Amino acid sequence: MKRIAILGSTGSIGQSALAVVDAHADRLQVVGLAAGENADLLGAQIARYKPRVAAMASGAALDRLKQNGTSSVTFAGTGREGLVAVASHPDADLVLCASSGTDGLEAVLAAIERGKTIALANKEVLVMAGGIVTEAARRRGVAILPVDSEHNAIHQCLHARPPADLKRLILTASGGPFRGRSSSDLAGVTPDAALKHPTWRMGRKITIDSATLMNKGLEVIEAHWLFDVRADQVDVVIHPQSVVHSMIELTDGSIIAQLGITDMRLPIQYAFSYPERWPAPVPSLDLARAGRLEFDTPDTQAFPCLRLAYRALEAERSLPVVLNAANEVAVARFLDGRIGFTSIPVVIERTMDAHRPAEVTTLAQVRAVNDWAREYSLEMARGVELKV
Amino acid sequence: MKRIAILGSTGSIGQSALAVVDAHADRLQVVGLAAGENADLLGAQIARYKPRVAAMASGAALDRLKQNGTSSVTFAGTGREGLVAVASHPDADLVLCASSGTDGLEAVLAAIERGKTIALANKEVLVMAGGIVTEAARRRGVAILPVDSEHNAIHQCLHARPPADLKRLILTASGGPFRGRSSSDLAGVTPDAALKHPTWRMGRKITIDSATLMNKGLEVIEAHWLFDVRADQVDVVIHPQSVVHSMIELTDGSIIAQLGITDMRLPIQYAFSYPERWPAPVPSLDLARAGRLEFDTPDTQAFPCLRLAYRALEAERSLPVVLNAANEVAVARFLDGRIGFTSIPVVIERTMDAHRPAEVTTLAQVRAVNDWAREYSLEMARGVELKV
Repeated sequence: MKRIAILGSTGSIGQSALAVVDAHADRLQVVGLAAGENADLLGAQIARYKPRVAAMASGAALDRLKQNGTSSVTFAGTGREGLVAVASHPDADLVLCASSGTDGLEAVLAAIERGKTIALANKEVLVMAGGIVTEAARRRGVAILPVDSEHNAIHQCLHARPPADLKRLILTASGGPFRGRSSSDLAGVTPDAALKHPTWRMGRKITIDSATLMNKGLEVIEAHWLFDVRADQVDVVIHPQSVVHSMIELTDGSIIAQLGITDMRLPIQYAFSYPERWPAPVPSLDLARAGRLEFDTPDTQAFPCLRLAYRALEAERSLPVVLNAANEVAVARFLDGRIGFTSIPVVIERTMDAHRPAEVTTLAQVRAVNDWAREYSLEMARGVELKV
Repeated sequence: MKRIAILGSTGSIGQSALAVVDAHADRLQVVGLAAGENADLLGAQIARYKPRVAAMASGAALDRLKQNGTSSVTFAGTGREGLVAVASHPDADLVLCASSGTDGLEAVLAAIERGKTIALANKEVLVMAGGIVTEAARRRGVAILPVDSEHNAIHQCLHARPPADLKRLILTASGGPFRGRSSSDLAGVTPDAALKHPTWRMGRKITIDSATLMNKGLEVIEAHWLFDVRADQVDVVIHPQSVVHSMIELTDGSIIAQLGITDMRLPIQYAFSYPERWPAPVPSLDLARAGRLEFDTPDTQAFPCLRLAYRALEAERSLPVVLNAANEVAVARFLDGRIGFTSIPVVIERTMDAHRPAEVTTLAQVRAVNDWAREYSLEMARGVELKV
């Protein structure tokens, strides 16, 4: 029996993770749940999975949860403190980090320090603090299992191969809803249009990141930390069908790819079952029915976010933190209808240009750079606000 | 330094193998060469690679070779005896079996008995005597490394995975030059048209087998022996671009695929370098340039040979020997312009129908069934000869 704590249990990934638990109730037990503001859903999850410990983002949410009357669960608190308490619970063997934003950072480090396996679905953790987190995991001998379908695919392809055999990683990208459009076509894009992803159903922030290709850019940075590869060893190829989840090229030119249906339960189950593999309650991929798989090079002219992410990774140090913070601010402003779609990379680039990269070896340094970048990019966003 | 003996050095695979030796002269040394009738080319190969031992199919060919005056090589004899002597040479670490037809059988077994690694490019060895050969290899702890691009791909995909994780194999097939045609379209096909393979350049026999899909059928039988899977665990999917060389599906529905350019030097080098991987002097696969990969189900109505191969594998015992022998005869008669393209499966099926499957546990039994099937199928072929 593997005992699981889930940070972000009411989100898209969290709900898929609980579906995996349902399918393998004999192998998986939920010992901790942490959610944001959705007290009703977390209440229902607590009633069903009976975790030992639970947490919510805010005191108000926790109060609503307590009013629902939730059995014998221990309330671990709110905010980062609550996340850390759930992630550190002595009964948890594995912590799935699917909380959004930067709040999961301390929790992941706390879980690593206690020797727990990490299933990582939160990009910010590695984009902001990849050096700190991977060094801690190395020191404690803890595995970080990626849940993102792309990195999960690469983990499956690499399976026990000697690192020296690896030439490069090839991340696939659906290209999002605006694939093939030019920069000028993109100026008038609305949040509603950008939220319609062609192949994956995901949260709002990541769906916009997919439309700008920043999601792929963040994945390039993640791949650097997860698989110890340089920026020039990570390529991106557009693959609209999202059937090939990613690939590796080996030194002899052979390419190993992982394919599957687009269902997040698969990479989540892979992380939960690793190093075993369990049967999955999903249909097999029928390639003959899929019919055709297409591949193309990404258009970094129309989608500059991908280029900005490579620039941040090449500079290393604090620039990825700036990229990520400015992107969070810009996407939020876009979703609020305050800035245009093509202003997202403008805000990010201006913020990056204004930053002098520095070493970041502590979470405090990361937070400081993050705070500065959020403030600065908000200022930049105000400068390009739409005149409605 | 790995010391290599090559059976079939003047054929298509043999020449590619020597190109791999050229690219890795610091890692590979040729200690034995065996060829069929091409004395001129073998003479040139002996002069260049200076093997210890050489053999040819016939006395006449060997005489021509000797007249060319070939240094200090030892002539090991002719026919099966010559192949056995080259394959058993004490200096050889690895034997590449790329001789055509059934003559390589004794040589492969002799090499296995002497503990040599086998790189296998000859389908008949496993189709005819899969049980005998794999049992011998198991007993001696000898690895059989497949050189066929499909099985080589599967070997790469399986890489160190627990056998219990495997659900099925998916062999890709280009579909050959007649993909999409109906049975009635195929009646008038000429040998010249059938010899034009869309993606791979290979020998004549295997090119016809690709056009009838029998090549894929033989590969299904080979896969059974190489990877210890049942007939219902081996699927075939048509993939005209030959970029995905084959795939495996794991128990959780995840598919691992191997992709690469269509160049036999790659699987040969993989077998020569295994368990290492060496840089290859071939360009990387450019997926964006490849553009589109298509997949379809095979048409066993128009191409009954694939169905016949599954039937032979399901019956096991001697029926695959009969399938293979009748196919060799039928293809030879087709290449001679004596029978039509659509008569190839007719000859094979009639011969299979006339055979009562029996156990085959010795090479003598295999040879006896083979001889019977050749004779019977020749008779059947005469019955369907074209009236020119």
